[in-house]
Amino acid sequence: MYSDEVQQVLDDDEITVGDRIRITRNDSSHSGILMPRASQGDMDVIVLKLDSGYNLGVTYDEDTTIEVVEHREPEDAETRKPPEHDPDRPDITILHTGGTIASRVSYEEGGVKPAFEPEELLDIYPELFDEANVESTIISQMFSEDMEPQHWQEIAEAVANHRENADGIIIGHGTDTMHYTAAALSFMLENIDIPVVLVGSQRSSDRPSSDAAFNLFSAIRFIKEDVPGVYVCMHETMSDTTATLHNGTAVRKMHTSRRDTFESIDRTPVARVNPETDNVELLDVPETGTDGEFKLRTELDTQVGLLQTQPGLDPELLSFYTDNEYRGLVVSGTGLGHLPVNVLDEHTEHHEDILNAVDAMTDDMVVAMSSQCINGRVNMNVYDSGVKLQHAGVLTAENMTPEAAYVKLMWALGQTDTIEEAEALFQENVAGELIPRETFDVR
Amino acid sequence: MYSDEVQQVLDDDEITVGDRIRITRNDSSHSGILMPRASQGDMDVIVLKLDSGYNLGVTYDEDTTIEVVEHREPEDAETRKPPEHDPDRPDITILHTGGTIASRVSYEEGGVKPAFEPEELLDIYPELFDEANVESTIISQMFSEDMEPQHWQEIAEAVANHRENADGIIIGHGTDTMHYTAAALSFMLENIDIPVVLVGSQRSSDRPSSDAAFNLFSAIRFIKEDVPGVYVCMHETMSDTTATLHNGTAVRKMHTSRRDTFESIDRTPVARVNPETDNVELLDVPETGTDGEFKLRTELDTQVGLLQTQPGLDPELLSFYTDNEYRGLVVSGTGLGHLPVNVLDEHTEHHEDILNAVDAMTDDMVVAMSSQCINGRVNMNVYDSGVKLQHAGVLTAENMTPEAAYVKLMWALGQTDTIEEAEALFQENVAGELIPRETFDVR
Repeated sequence: MYSDEVQQVLDDDEITVGDRIRITRNDSSHSGILMPRASQGDMDVIVLKLDSGYNLGVTYDEDTTIEVVEHREPEDAETRKPPEHDPDRPDITILHTGGTIASRVSYEEGGVKPAFEPEELLDIYPELFDEANVESTIISQMFSEDMEPQHWQEIAEAVANHRENADGIIIGHGTDTMHYTAAALSFMLENIDIPVVLVGSQRSSDRPSSDAAFNLFSAIRFIKEDVPGVYVCMHETMSDTTATLHNGTAVRKMHTSRRDTFESIDRTPVARVNPETDNVELLDVPETGTDGEFKLRTELDTQVGLLQTQPGLDPELLSFYTDNEYRGLVVSGTGLGHLPVNVLDEHTEHHEDILNAVDAMTDDMVVAMSSQCINGRVNMNVYDSGVKLQHAGVLTAENMTPEAAYVKLMWALGQTDTIEEAEALFQENVAGELIPRETFDVR
Repeated sequence: MYSDEVQQVLDDDEITVGDRIRITRNDSSHSGILMPRASQGDMDVIVLKLDSGYNLGVTYDEDTTIEVVEHREPEDAETRKPPEHDPDRPDITILHTGGTIASRVSYEEGGVKPAFEPEELLDIYPELFDEANVESTIISQMFSEDMEPQHWQEIAEAVANHRENADGIIIGHGTDTMHYTAAALSFMLENIDIPVVLVGSQRSSDRPSSDAAFNLFSAIRFIKEDVPGVYVCMHETMSDTTATLHNGTAVRKMHTSRRDTFESIDRTPVARVNPETDNVELLDVPETGTDGEFKLRTELDTQVGLLQTQPGLDPELLSFYTDNEYRGLVVSGTGLGHLPVNVLDEHTEHHEDILNAVDAMTDDMVVAMSSQCINGRVNMNVYDSGVKLQHAGVLTAENMTPEAAYVKLMWALGQTDTIEEAEALFQENVAGELIPRETFDVR
C-alpha cells in the first residue's frame, strides 16, 4: 500500500503498474516503468524500473512531480503459429535452462523473473523462425547462479537426446555460471558432431537494450558454418556490432553488467559473427576429436573444491577439505601458481603447516594449481614455492582457467576409479582446454 | 652429479655453471645459461635457464651436441660510490621487500633467488642515481606469495618512518600479491602527503628482458609530479613503451607472466609515463584526503576470509568460517553478486542451508559480496538471489575488487570495536576504492 498522498497522485493520472512515467525532483529526473511497490518499507517510495534494468526507489515528497510518458500496452493475446518446416533452413533445437535471456520483467511481482513458456518464444523472437526450423524445449527455469553440477548432467543428456535431429543446438542459459556449464558440456559431450552454443543475455528480452535477439541470431548464423564443438556466443562489444564465439573451456564472465562480458581467456576467440551482414569470420577453430563416435560421459565426482589463496591464508582451511573427505581441490594460486609455503620470519612460521597440509592432502586427493591471474600459464618451475608444491604432489593446471580446471577435475574423478587415473586424465587435453607448453622436456 | 658421459662433455669445453651454451638435438636447438643440476633426478639431464626465464631440462644422449656460446664473465668486484646529494633532484627512498625486482639468477643454487643487498643497487641500476638522491633500505627479502598481513603493517610503518625525509617512496615488491599490499597501504596511510609507488618486475634484473629498470625509472618520473597517494607502477604494454600508474585499491595482477600484467580494474589508470621522453600524462588522479594530518592506521583483524563461490558450493564451507570464529568474509559471488540460495528442484534443496548459513554468519561477522567477474559493480537489487542475500545481512562491496574488499574488511574490523562500526567503515570511501553509484536513493 502506498500512502494516501502517493496513491492520490497516481490515481489522478490513471497510472498503474507497467506504465512508463517520469519522476522529477529538484534537478533530478528519471523515466522508467512503474513497478509494484515493495511489500515492506516506506509507503512514500515509488519504484521505477529504469531502462538500464535497475530498480530505482524514489521517495515522494512535495518537491516531486510525476508525469505519464506512456501507458502500458495491453499484451497481445493472439499467438502466431510457427511456419512449416523448410528443408533449406537448418534444424535448430533451443534448450531453455532459464536466465535473463528467458526472462521478462514481472510487472505483477517486481524484479526480473524467469518466465519463458515455449509459446512465448515466437512472440519475443519472431524473426528466428525466418532463419531456421526451430524446436524449443524447457529443461529448467533458473538463473544460473543456482545451477548445480547435476544440472550440467541433465543439460548434457538433453543435448545427447536432441543431437540426431538437429543441425545445431542452442542452450539458453543465465550468464552467471555459463562458463562453468560450457566447460562441463565440453568434457561430457565427447566427439560431439554438431555445434552446441550457449547463449545468454545481460538485459532481459523486453528491454530496449536487450542483447538476447542479437546473440541468438549470431548463434544461428555460426551454427550454419557446421563447426562441431561447445561454444559460448555473446556480444563482442558494448554495442550491436559483432558477436564472439568462445571455446567452451576457455571463456569467462569478466564484467558484472556489460554486454561484452564474456572473454576468451588467453587465446583468440573461435569466431566473430556479424548478424547484420551475415558474415562469419572463423578465427581459431580448435582441433576437435570428431574422428571417434559420440559418447556421453556425464559422470562427475562433486567432492571437489575451488580455493583462491590469499595473504593470511589459514592452514585450517586446507584441512577442511581433508576432514570432509574431498577427492579434489583446485587452488587459484598467486602469480605463476604459488601458495605461501616458505618460512622466512616470525610471521611466516605457519607456512610450514600450509605445506604440510598440502602434502597430506595429495595422499587421497588430486590437488591442482591454477592462477588467480586468470590469464597466462601456471609454471611451478621458476620459483621455490612452485618447486616445493610440486614435490608435495600438486599438479599444474597449465593454461586452464581456475573454473575450467575445477569442472574438469570433477569430471576426471567421475570418469576414473583411482586418484592416479584421474590425475592422468586431468593432465590430458580433452576438449581444447589444455594447450601444451611449446618447449620440450621442461623439468 | 652428472653421469660420467655428460661431465666429460662439459669438461672438454671447460663449461661451468653460469656459461651460456647451446644444446642441439635433432631439429631442436636451445641457447641458455647452464644451471646447477637438480640434486635429485636423472643424471643425464642438463638444465638451461632460457632467456625467457624458464628452466629447460634436456636429456643428454648420443644425438645431443653442446657448444659454448659465451663463458660467464667474472663478477665485477669494484663497487661504485653513490654521487653526492644534489638539492635539485628529488629525494627518493627505496624500500626493498624482495620479489623478482630484487632478485638475480642464483648460479650457485639454481632458480631465481631474492638476493638484493643495498650495495648491489648501484651495480644493477647505476642510472637511478642520475635521476634522484636515492636512499635504499631492506625491509624483507621475500617473494610476495609469502607476504602476510603483518608484513603490510611493517611496510606501512617503514613508509611512515621515511616519509618526512623523502619526496617519494618506492617499494620494491614481488608481483604475486602486490595489489593486496597496495590496497593495504592505501588504507593504512591516511592522508599520505607524498607519492608511494609499488614497483615490481616480471623478469629478474640480470635478464636481458628485465622490466625492472624501466618500471623504476617510470616510478621516479611519476614521483616528480608530486601526486600524493599509493600506486602501482608497471609496464603498460608488452614492450618498453610506457608504464602505467594504477590506484593502489583498484588494480590487479591479470597475467601470470606478461610484463603488462597489472591492470586498473574498471577505471582509467592514474597516469601514463614514457621514461624515454620523460613525458607523464595524468589521466585520472583520484581525489585524495590530504586536507587532514597524516595518520598511520595499521591495525588489522586478520580473522577474515575470501571465498569464491562455485557451482556445487558446500554449505559446510560457510560453516567453517563461523566455527572458527571469523569476524569477516568477502564472497566473490557470481555475476552481479550472487550465491546459490534459491530452492528450485531436488538438486537445489541444500541452497536453503546456504542461505541459512549466511544468515547465521551475519550475526557475528561482516559478510560482504564482491564479484568473481572482477570488473563491474555488484548490484544485489536486480535478481532474487541478491535481494535474499541483502535480507540475510550481506553488504555490497560495490565496485571494489574481491582482493581490495578483502584487505579493506580486515582493516575496517581492525579500526573499530563493533561489527556495526566496521560495516559502516567498510561502506565508506577511504582511499578512492569505492566510487558511489551515480543514481539517487536506489532501493
